[in-house]
Parts: sequence; C-alpha cells; structure tokens
Amino acid sequence: MSNPPRTAVIGLGSMGYGMAASLLRAGHDTLGVDMDAARTQRFIGEGGRADSLADAANTLECVVIVVLNAAQTESVLFDEAVGIVPQLSPGACVVACATVPPTAARELAARCEALGVHYLDAPISGGSLKAASGELTIMAAGSAEAFSAARSALEAMSAKVFDLGEAAGAGSAMKAVNQMLAGVHIAAMAEALTFGMTQGVEPERFLEIISQCAGTSWILENRAPHIVAGDYSPRSSVDIWPKDLGIVLDMAKQAKFAAPITAAALQQFLAASGSGLGAEDDAAVAKVYARNAGLTLPERR
Amino acid sequence: MSNPPRTAVIGLGSMGYGMAASLLRAGHDTLGVDMDAARTQRFIGEGGRADSLADAANTLECVVIVVLNAAQTESVLFDEAVGIVPQLSPGACVVACATVPPTAARELAARCEALGVHYLDAPISGGSLKAASGELTIMAAGSAEAFSAARSALEAMSAKVFDLGEAAGAGSAMKAVNQMLAGVHIAAMAEALTFGMTQGVEPERFLEIISQCAGTSWILENRAPHIVAGDYSPRSSVDIWPKDLGIVLDMAKQAKFAAPITAAALQQFLAASGSGLGAEDDAAVAKVYARNAGLTLPERR
Repeated sequence: MSNPPRTAVIGLGSMGYGMAASLLRAGHDTLGVDMDAARTQRFIGEGGRADSLADAANTLECVVIVVLNAAQTESVLFDEAVGIVPQLSPGACVVACATVPPTAARELAARCEALGVHYLDAPISGGSLKAASGELTIMAAGSAEAFSAARSALEAMSAKVFDLGEAAGAGSAMKAVNQMLAGVHIAAMAEALTFGMTQGVEPERFLEIISQCAGTSWILENRAPHIVAGDYSPRSSVDIWPKDLGIVLDMAKQAKFAAPITAAALQQFLAASGSGLGAEDDAAVAKVYARNAGLTLPERR
Repeated sequence: MSNPPRTAVIGLGSMGYGMAASLLRAGHDTLGVDMDAARTQRFIGEGGRADSLADAANTLECVVIVVLNAAQTESVLFDEAVGIVPQLSPGACVVACATVPPTAARELAARCEALGVHYLDAPISGGSLKAASGELTIMAAGSAEAFSAARSALEAMSAKVFDLGEAAGAGSAMKAVNQMLAGVHIAAMAEALTFGMTQGVEPERFLEIISQCAGTSWILENRAPHIVAGDYSPRSSVDIWPKDLGIVLDMAKQAKFAAPITAAALQQFLAASGSGLGAEDDAAVAKVYARNAGLTLPERR
C-alpha cells in the first residue's frame, strides 16, 4: 500500500479547521498551521502532524491555503522569511482557497509555476458546517497537472468541484459572482423581513411563506432562520461582506461596470460592522434595518 | 347533482385568462370579462359564458378580479356606472388578486362588506404558466365566510393557498414582501450575470454553476435561462416592477422604513422601462447593465 498523501492546511479558522479535519478523516497525513498556537495544538490533538511547516515542506504534495484575502495568501506563499513556495518540492501543488481578485490569482499562479509548483485557483463555498463535513463546493481553475496533484485533497474536502478550465483566475471570477449574489441576497432578505414587520408580517410567518414563493433564495432559507431564532452566533460573519463585496466592487470598478444593487448592499454591511456587529452572524445585518425602523427583532429562545 | 358554481373573472390578461381557463376546466360556469373584446370572445370560444356581466351579476357566487392595480380594482368594484359590487347578491364573494397596498385592501373590503358582499384579499404569485395550469400560489386573508364562498374557485386556480387570517390587508402585505424580494432578485441576477461577463464568465456557465451555489434564488433559476436563450418574450414584463416596487416603496415610506436595496433595484427597472423595454420579459433589465458596460448579451437561438 502506498503512503498516505501528505497535505498541509494553512489557516485553521472556521473554514480551514473543518477542511483540515476532513483531510485527516480521509486518511491524509495532515499538517495544520495557524498563527493561533491553540488551534494548531487542538488539531494535533485530533491526529494532525506535530512537526513544523519548515520541516515538512519538502515532503508535502499539497498545501491548502485558507486565509482571509490575497495579501495573506501572498504572504503565506512568498513572504521573504517564511514563504512556503520556495521550500516545496517541484510538482507540489498550492490549493488557494481565499476569495481573491482574479488578477491576484493569475499573478500568484505565475509566480508558483516559475518555481515548478502547481497552483490551483480554488475558492470555496458552503460555510463552516460543510467545511467540517467535507462537503464544500469548490470553483477550481488550473492546469491538468495542478488538478491531478490536488485531486485527492479536493475529494476529501468537497461534495462538488467545478472545473473552470486551465487559466487561474476563472475560479476566483466565479466566486466573486457568487459572493455578489449571496451578499445582496442576505441584505435583501434582511430588508424584506424587517419591511414585513412594519406591515404586520411576523418573521416566523415570513420564513414559512416566502420560502415557498417566488421571492425565495438559498440564502433566505439558510439565514432567515437565524433571525427567527434570534441566534447570531457566527456561521459566516458580517465582516466577510465588506471584504468580499469590496473585492467584487473593485473588480467592477476596474471593468467600468456599474453595480448599484451590490453597492447598496455593501453599505448595509458597513453599517452593521461599523455599529459593532462585525463578528456576529451575517444575518445580523437585519439589526441595522430594525434599528433604523424602531423594530424589535425576535429574542433568542 | 348541484349546479356548477357560477364565477366571473374580470381581467383576461396574462394571469386572468389562465385563471379563467382553470375555472372552466374545473367545471365552473365561468364568465370572462375584459376591456379587449377579442379576449372576451376568445374565452367564450373556449366555453365561457356568453352573457354580459350586468345580466349575470346577481347570479354570481364569486367574482375574481385580476386587474393591474388598486385604482382599477376600485373601478371594477365601485365605478358609479359599471361597478359590480352593488349588482351582486348578498353572500357573493369578491376575490381581489391585484397587487395593492394593504390599506387599499382594507378599505375595499369594508366597502364590500357594507353591501353584504364578502371580500377576499387574495394576491397571486407564480406567473402566467402556473395561472394557466391552475397552480398559482394565493396569499389570502378574509373572513371565514369569504374563504368559504371562494373555496371552490381557489381550489380551481391554485396549488397552494396561504390562509393569512381574517383581516383583509394581510394577503397584500405578504405579497408586497414577496414582490420586494422577487424584484430585487431579478435585478441582482442581471447585475451578477453581466458582471460575470466582464470577468470572462459566460452567461450559460453562470446559470449552470451559480444555480448550484449559495448565490442561487428561485428567480435566478427561473429568469436567467431567458437571458441565456436571448428570449425576452414576456412571461412577466419589465413594467410590472416600477408598479410593484413602487407600491412597496410607498408602503415603506409610509412606515418610515429605509429600503436602499429595493430603491436601487427600482432604478434599474425604471431605466429598462424608460429605454423602451417595458413590454419585454423582466429579464430584459439585464440589457440596461449590458448597455452601460458595453457587453453583448446572447442572441436568440
């Protein structure tokens, strides 16, 4: 029997931890790395490798990067002191999962490939529960060699991988389109739920009925229950959205594309973040609407 | 065997015609009325009653009103010369299906009830295909007597009736909430589809992938195919939305409720209507985005 695949996950946040655990479960010899030593230790306790990234680097087949943005991805890959790419063996593959502009994905891919390391532009969708169960959706673009090197890790982490072609950036472009809609749909759901309250429609009734009508969305069915239950423990936090809709609107500006609805949604997330709700579940954008209209949202039961 | 229920449908547009046909199919003795005599004649040809509304009025058990707005509904019901309510027998029921403000529904209900006529506040959702197949969703509010008098007609026209309680206005409130989301989701879908085009995402690929991701909505899955096919023959027209989002924003203004995303969506429909697209399918709001960004949407195949 061949050795188990050797994989590292850099970034053990709400997404990365679950992805690393899914890799372990699938039999990968998995190294988990995080700036927060407590998370790293917790992962070792679950069966993760105990050695350092520097020691393991030249034996790794796949490095999954699950950090916040393009700047952090670049730092993990190419920081002068600790950048991982120059330490990898040729033929290893970087699986870059952060939401980044397609231009950043293309640039990082070119720098990896110049060092003989494959790069898979592989943003993820699905939230922390699906990360933990190994059922993410991955929007991936990269060379046949990159897909091949990453295949076992992708299978361990996802229920569905979209193959968006050979050119890095195509995954990030599709992810941006998805985030644009998901972000707008969260704020629109909050706008409609609270508007309904001004008209005597109880949030519970809103969820029950609109989820069966033409106004429904995946987001409505996923997030409105948080408001109905008064539960804002973060599955996906408010602060994701100023970041992701910011990336979307930067891309739009670059393309001279007017996106007025996305721009309006971003303002609502900024108001939520600015008023101290940044770490709450993103459904808490409803609190901005409720405050502005003097409404009382359901309490936690 | 008892006589078939006697029902009239006033307004044989894209929704009303299908609803009248569904009533016929269910065995109702159905009178179809429209300002456009050709539509009335066509309905008679399909088996509708051939007498006039004035002649039939005092024998009708149920009158279904499927006109454009509150003003037309009021005119049909109470116009000095031709208003139908004073001609109905006590115990008959008006089923009011137009999208109207809840305040209008409450006022019309009170005026009907003062003449011994029941009123069901019964906005509809589902589009012309479901109207034709008798599978609409109806958001209904009214007295037990109104529901009872309308039951047979409701069953003939709908797959699902939500009972929103005794107070007229509750159906219209829920409909407004649904329209708010549906309208926003159409414009947001168009915004994301065309934004995707600026990033190299083909509309067909957008539909295939985003419909399986967190960014999907009922509207996206229903309307994006129109854009992919380049087919703007109206199932629901652009001009519905300045009207319905206008009603929503009037209600919001009255309640001092700030609805920035809905307001942004309305502007896009106004731009579509103002540039001559009002009679096209509402997915044609994508043409506003495409024009603004110099993009070419798919041609009709």
